[in-house]
Amino acid sequence: MNSTKREGVLYVISAPSGAGKTTLCKEIIDIFPNLRHSVSYTTRTPRNGEVHGRDYFFVGKEEFSRMVEAGEFAEWAEVHGNFYGTSLAVLKECRSQGIDLILDIDCQGASQLKSRFEGGVYIFVLPPSIAELRRRLDNRSSDSQEVIERRIKNASGEIKEARWYDYIIVNDKFEVAVEQLKSVLIAEQCRAFRLLGSLSSTFEF
Amino acid sequence: MNSTKREGVLYVISAPSGAGKTTLCKEIIDIFPNLRHSVSYTTRTPRNGEVHGRDYFFVGKEEFSRMVEAGEFAEWAEVHGNFYGTSLAVLKECRSQGIDLILDIDCQGASQLKSRFEGGVYIFVLPPSIAELRRRLDNRSSDSQEVIERRIKNASGEIKEARWYDYIIVNDKFEVAVEQLKSVLIAEQCRAFRLLGSLSSTFEF
Repeated sequence: MNSTKREGVLYVISAPSGAGKTTLCKEIIDIFPNLRHSVSYTTRTPRNGEVHGRDYFFVGKEEFSRMVEAGEFAEWAEVHGNFYGTSLAVLKECRSQGIDLILDIDCQGASQLKSRFEGGVYIFVLPPSIAELRRRLDNRSSDSQEVIERRIKNASGEIKEARWYDYIIVNDKFEVAVEQLKSVLIAEQCRAFRLLGSLSSTFEF
Repeated sequence: MNSTKREGVLYVISAPSGAGKTTLCKEIIDIFPNLRHSVSYTTRTPRNGEVHGRDYFFVGKEEFSRMVEAGEFAEWAEVHGNFYGTSLAVLKECRSQGIDLILDIDCQGASQLKSRFEGGVYIFVLPPSIAELRRRLDNRSSDSQEVIERRIKNASGEIKEARWYDYIIVNDKFEVAVEQLKSVLIAEQCRAFRLLGSLSSTFEF
């Protein structure tokens, strides 16, 4: 009875750097056993502690270009001079296997997915304010002042994109943001259009 | 700054009798301080323990007809030979005051609201199966066997309507159903279209 099998849900999260998206994603992965984090491909240099295959698949620009040409990406984008992409094969596999997938990607990639795939859930994480975003970036030892200034400048443009997302989570108090993200995931599992297929073996709709 | 004020959200819950909708609504009201239960007008006879103004506004058929004629109902419907209706004035007042309202009404009334108002959230509560629904109705001392048979017969028709609701909650384990309903309410508060107005004083979208 393939027709009644539940499809995996695609959650797409975007945010300006420093809004706390990565920490939120890590927290939420531990709560939902059926949820996996999609590992992006990137041409950027690994940061301290980042592991190939866990945080990203680190590839060269040539390999990335080959994958783009071969249509192997569900979405890809250039961000701050580096390339990032999501494997189309992984996305399709998870959907058909009923595995939920969380994608932590930028607005350009999210926009591509929204136009290519139906049923995805688009979540934008906002900092409480630009001033608080600056404070958080200042406290993050990994970035130089030049990088911070560029991120702040980019943030204003990225935040404009929140408009077309399904949900906005303001990451002021972390526990509240986690509760909201968790609620979005649970609520989306209850969406009628996702359930009618599997419930049609019990009820006539 | 009226333009940035948050509007009250309208939650509409329907279910066949015995699915546990009323208990779920009571539970959820205690969790959200900003959420009120909308008290319907009805022409039916009060059941044991029901209080005028708390459970329903009990009115005669003549008064109900007058209210229909005067356009005082946001929705009204005839169910099992009795009339039920929701005050339009209360609905508008709560929306403009930023108070969330939960309406526990049948599919006909819900369908009227959906065509008349934007931004409402439509939730259908299902029993785990028709057999379990029958068991629950049998255990409810208030109904005669004749009433139970009629409710079971009506349930199949009502369940078909679940199709056009936004969310479906299967009330198998009560705590799980409460968690799901709670999540739907929290998630809906995070919907981008509800937040952009109030966030526009902090960010440019």
